[in-house]
Amino acid sequence: MGLGNIKRKLIGKPFPTSMEIHERLDKVRALAIFASDPISSNAYATEAIMSVLILLGYGAISLTFPIALGITLLVLIVVFSYIQTILHYPNGGGSYIVAKDNLGTLPSLIAAGALLTDYILTVSVSVSAGIRAITSAFPALKDYHVALALFAIAFLTWVNLRGVRESGTIFVIPTYAFVGGVLLVVIIGLVRTLGWFGASPLPVNPLPTEQVSLIAGVGYAWIILRAFAAGCTALTGIEAISDGVQAFKPPEAANAAKTLVIMAVIAMSLFSGISFLSTHLHLIPNEADSILSQMTRTITGGGFLYYWVQLFTMLILILAANTGFQDFPRLSYFLARDNFMPRWMINRGDRLVFSGGITVLAVLSSLLVIIFQANEIAMLPLYAIGVMVSFTISQAGMLHLMSRIGKIKPGESITTLETTIHYEKGWHWKYVVYAIGSLTTLIVFLVLVVTKFLEGAWITVLIIGLLIAMFYEINRHYQRVSKALSTKDLVGKENSIIKIADVVILPMGDVHKGTLRALQYAVRMSNDVRAVSITTSEEMKERLMKRWNRFPGITKNAELICIDYDYRDVLDPLIDYILKVKREEFPNQLITVVIPEFVTESLPAQFLHNQTANFLRFRLRNQPNIITVEIPFHIKKNIPLSSYKEKDEGEEDAPSKQDDSPD
Amino acid sequence: MGLGNIKRKLIGKPFPTSMEIHERLDKVRALAIFASDPISSNAYATEAIMSVLILLGYGAISLTFPIALGITLLVLIVVFSYIQTILHYPNGGGSYIVAKDNLGTLPSLIAAGALLTDYILTVSVSVSAGIRAITSAFPALKDYHVALALFAIAFLTWVNLRGVRESGTIFVIPTYAFVGGVLLVVIIGLVRTLGWFGASPLPVNPLPTEQVSLIAGVGYAWIILRAFAAGCTALTGIEAISDGVQAFKPPEAANAAKTLVIMAVIAMSLFSGISFLSTHLHLIPNEADSILSQMTRTITGGGFLYYWVQLFTMLILILAANTGFQDFPRLSYFLARDNFMPRWMINRGDRLVFSGGITVLAVLSSLLVIIFQANEIAMLPLYAIGVMVSFTISQAGMLHLMSRIGKIKPGESITTLETTIHYEKGWHWKYVVYAIGSLTTLIVFLVLVVTKFLEGAWITVLIIGLLIAMFYEINRHYQRVSKALSTKDLVGKENSIIKIADVVILPMGDVHKGTLRALQYAVRMSNDVRAVSITTSEEMKERLMKRWNRFPGITKNAELICIDYDYRDVLDPLIDYILKVKREEFPNQLITVVIPEFVTESLPAQFLHNQTANFLRFRLRNQPNIITVEIPFHIKKNIPLSSYKEKDEGEEDAPSKQDDSPD
Repeated sequence: MGLGNIKRKLIGKPFPTSMEIHERLDKVRALAIFASDPISSNAYATEAIMSVLILLGYGAISLTFPIALGITLLVLIVVFSYIQTILHYPNGGGSYIVAKDNLGTLPSLIAAGALLTDYILTVSVSVSAGIRAITSAFPALKDYHVALALFAIAFLTWVNLRGVRESGTIFVIPTYAFVGGVLLVVIIGLVRTLGWFGASPLPVNPLPTEQVSLIAGVGYAWIILRAFAAGCTALTGIEAISDGVQAFKPPEAANAAKTLVIMAVIAMSLFSGISFLSTHLHLIPNEADSILSQMTRTITGGGFLYYWVQLFTMLILILAANTGFQDFPRLSYFLARDNFMPRWMINRGDRLVFSGGITVLAVLSSLLVIIFQANEIAMLPLYAIGVMVSFTISQAGMLHLMSRIGKIKPGESITTLETTIHYEKGWHWKYVVYAIGSLTTLIVFLVLVVTKFLEGAWITVLIIGLLIAMFYEINRHYQRVSKALSTKDLVGKENSIIKIADVVILPMGDVHKGTLRALQYAVRMSNDVRAVSITTSEEMKERLMKRWNRFPGITKNAELICIDYDYRDVLDPLIDYILKVKREEFPNQLITVVIPEFVTESLPAQFLHNQTANFLRFRLRNQPNIITVEIPFHIKKNIPLSSYKEKDEGEEDAPSKQDDSPD
Repeated sequence: MGLGNIKRKLIGKPFPTSMEIHERLDKVRALAIFASDPISSNAYATEAIMSVLILLGYGAISLTFPIALGITLLVLIVVFSYIQTILHYPNGGGSYIVAKDNLGTLPSLIAAGALLTDYILTVSVSVSAGIRAITSAFPALKDYHVALALFAIAFLTWVNLRGVRESGTIFVIPTYAFVGGVLLVVIIGLVRTLGWFGASPLPVNPLPTEQVSLIAGVGYAWIILRAFAAGCTALTGIEAISDGVQAFKPPEAANAAKTLVIMAVIAMSLFSGISFLSTHLHLIPNEADSILSQMTRTITGGGFLYYWVQLFTMLILILAANTGFQDFPRLSYFLARDNFMPRWMINRGDRLVFSGGITVLAVLSSLLVIIFQANEIAMLPLYAIGVMVSFTISQAGMLHLMSRIGKIKPGESITTLETTIHYEKGWHWKYVVYAIGSLTTLIVFLVLVVTKFLEGAWITVLIIGLLIAMFYEINRHYQRVSKALSTKDLVGKENSIIKIADVVILPMGDVHKGTLRALQYAVRMSNDVRAVSITTSEEMKERLMKRWNRFPGITKNAELICIDYDYRDVLDPLIDYILKVKREEFPNQLITVVIPEFVTESLPAQFLHNQTANFLRFRLRNQPNIITVEIPFHIKKNIPLSSYKEKDEGEEDAPSKQDDSPD
């Protein structure tokens, strides 16, 4: 079974291009798909806050809920901003597009770099957290968690390479099942906490007796800031809807905005509920058992509902990882279209998906999982940074857009590169919101960088920097290509692009059927054929000339040039000769080199031959204006052989042993 | 600094072929070089015997000396055989040559496989033992012994790739210094043991009180056999002189035979001396401190003489490893000449040495050192097997030669493939010696296989088997090549080797400077040029035709064929078209495909393009009778660019973005 067949079995039959349709999502499905990322961050966001607060001692855990409320407020601002973004960029307004439209190239590339980093982390973090939901419930699986995470990424890659459309509805279940399950747990928890309906009170963990002296003053504030920064992972994924407005049914923008609001309400209800109850229950972060798992077990007693929540925690997290598989290739596509990423990322694969982007994402996120041993809490410092960068840039871009809108007179409209803007009455209010929003996220970003720099945020900063440098380098390359290929000045002069010299050089180690065949081809191409042989001994030279003269029918039309050479590496003098001919006889012209080459019956057999032809082609490749013509000579497997030639019969006719060129 | 320069610095300036001279060795230097291998086995042979005997309890160590005497007897037989071999094969009579001349192909290949395995092991074992001599003296180095062994192999590789001739004399010192040192130690040891000259008696180790019940009967004999087999490593290296007779000054054979005798006398004196003293001193094998080191320290008290012996033990062992670097490439050369190894092993490298063989040997022996963690005692079971195989085959070959000699009448002579034989009076005595010799080594071989099979001998047997299969496979390949290239039936018909079709197919993604240049070349080659474009959309097709028609000067001489295709993988329909043209229009003829190709300004930039040209060439390569012509188009680094093209100017003229073919 060849490679092609394996691919066919794994990925499925290719789809024709005409099958590409733009399926629209209703709000129920759109919510499930877009909200999986922000809603699923509830699996770890509360825990991220508590992991920092614990540094102040067990007592400080009680600060979790107030900090969670602060983060909820931040979410409100960001959501309001994004509703406006959606309404102003109905064709899709991710940070990259908004920044490109309003702030110029560099800010847009910073946003793009941050987002690409983030999408990779979405996959690594979500998959790792999802596997932890399961290992929390089944501790026996803990030893295999890295392998399980890698398997999950492989599964997502496979599903995405096949194209996910056909199984779209299946993806709706985990989100709603998760939201329903956790909401039920939170409600039971609240009811029992408040003692309503005569419910039995919750078993609150006793606080450890150990009395940690609270850190005071600046140190204290610093840890609170760090806890706040850590909790900001709850904001990840909010921007996804703004990028995918076109996936909604008409009216696209309005539907998208409504979905965004519902999503924010659900995500923040769960977040504050979980944070409140975890604080109330005095839960302590523990690597083997996530906070959400502890809370659910305490409230439900570990029965059916517990396993329901754990299962759908895993599934919604896998689904969240899947958003990375949607977003990364789409952004790569936008960047490739603008010549900032390799152009092959534009191409759709066999199943009409961006196979290139999917594969790159799978490799990079798997690497992260291996490096961080599938520990998502350790990856979070890298994660939130990128989100805040893109929020800040996106809102700064919208701020600029609002100032442009402010200059429009009533009834007028302006078309920017990406959208059309009209006069708006309340533009200055929105301007203020964007100012506050971008300032807030900028401050959070700075807090994140400062507080988490040593924890790993420097890696994100470094990677974003390298990505931006790469974007520019790629762009320069495509500019060079475009200039080089331009046909602007060619019209009417198309026959004089280059002068083609009437010369063919044929490197030849020996006269045999393979080289004679090549000679026959060369003679047909040119009146000035030069068979060049590097002769390393007198005998070789004599033998060669004798055999050459035996075939006057062909050889009379060519010239045999023997170059005596007292070393064994025949490539150097051959290339010297070719370059000399080019330089002295045919400067600025195309010259042709015909290379006879063995193609053996099997790949290992290729190693039984000097790779002269391959090396020659490789070295000539860097010389401009040299054309190489390969004349393959196939050695077939089914030639009848004597069982073993006891002794070479010394036949004059057998090809030379010392030199088995053409190859 | 390019790769070529690095190589030049490391290996040195290439030597011209005419520099090749056949330097002859006088007996003093020849002894040092050839004897290093057998003499150096004294560093571990005694220990190998003791390591087995210890299984019977400490008391059994006393059997070491008698077993050593038995091995010495075996050496006598083998040496006598090889003296005759040298005299009958003055051009060099290694096992491979003798077997080929007398027994046929299969036995010669078995011998060759055994010897190649052995030469690899010579390097691994000797280097490991050499490093152990040093770590015995300086235990602090013990932790780095694998790295040190690999470094030693790298050093030997480097020296051999540079060509060792220039520093030949340096290699004489370790052998004589080692022999002198150990001989002195043995003499002092004997003198003190016997109490001559009133010398102080040696401090004999007290035997541990632990009383091990001796294993009786068959088990006992079995362990004695195993100990004997283990000690046979003392025989390694004896055959080397027979292979290198031509390296001696005339009379070559006589000098070689004399050297062989002296070598055997020295090696066996040391071996029996060391075995006697180690037994007498009740030394116990210990991985951290070799037996030779223990003995020398006990006898000399650990002073200057101790470090002298340890240092030169290491150096002679490194020198012994070096014989592997001489023998492996030489035997590979013989095999390659007979078409049983890749032909490039015939070629001499820059410094007139067999670079290919040296490199292969270095890689394989390093692998063994890593696998066995530089523990030479663990490698010995693999080692002695190959030696015995080659001894047995060599002597069986000589046995056959003697029977042929027996049939010659006085005054007559017969020329075999490799040598000339004459009537000999005492041939039947020699016949008897070879019969005894080959039978003895065959028995030792069987004992080794049986006793050491599970210890690792099976690996050797397996490898030898695989090597023989490889030899045959390689031979079959070269036979195929030879038949395929034969020009026997071509004389006078050289112009009709193949019919060359007047057609050129030019795959083309877009009309730009690169493809127009290729088209210009194609039009010059043929009257039937077909530019084939796989069009994946109507727009692409229209755009292409519009641009095609803009350059009638070239395009009027060619035909544009647009193939509509509803998938993205354009390679398949392209290849289908090419094969269809070949099959339907030009069966059994050579057809030509011209492939325009980007050569980017740097290697990473190549990844920014579809590798269409490379994939196309790769896939066409397996099709007989398709010639590919590559028209490289170089993207230069120094094209002036605007700093950033804010927006594509939408110029009609820029090459298409969707499809950046040619590449």
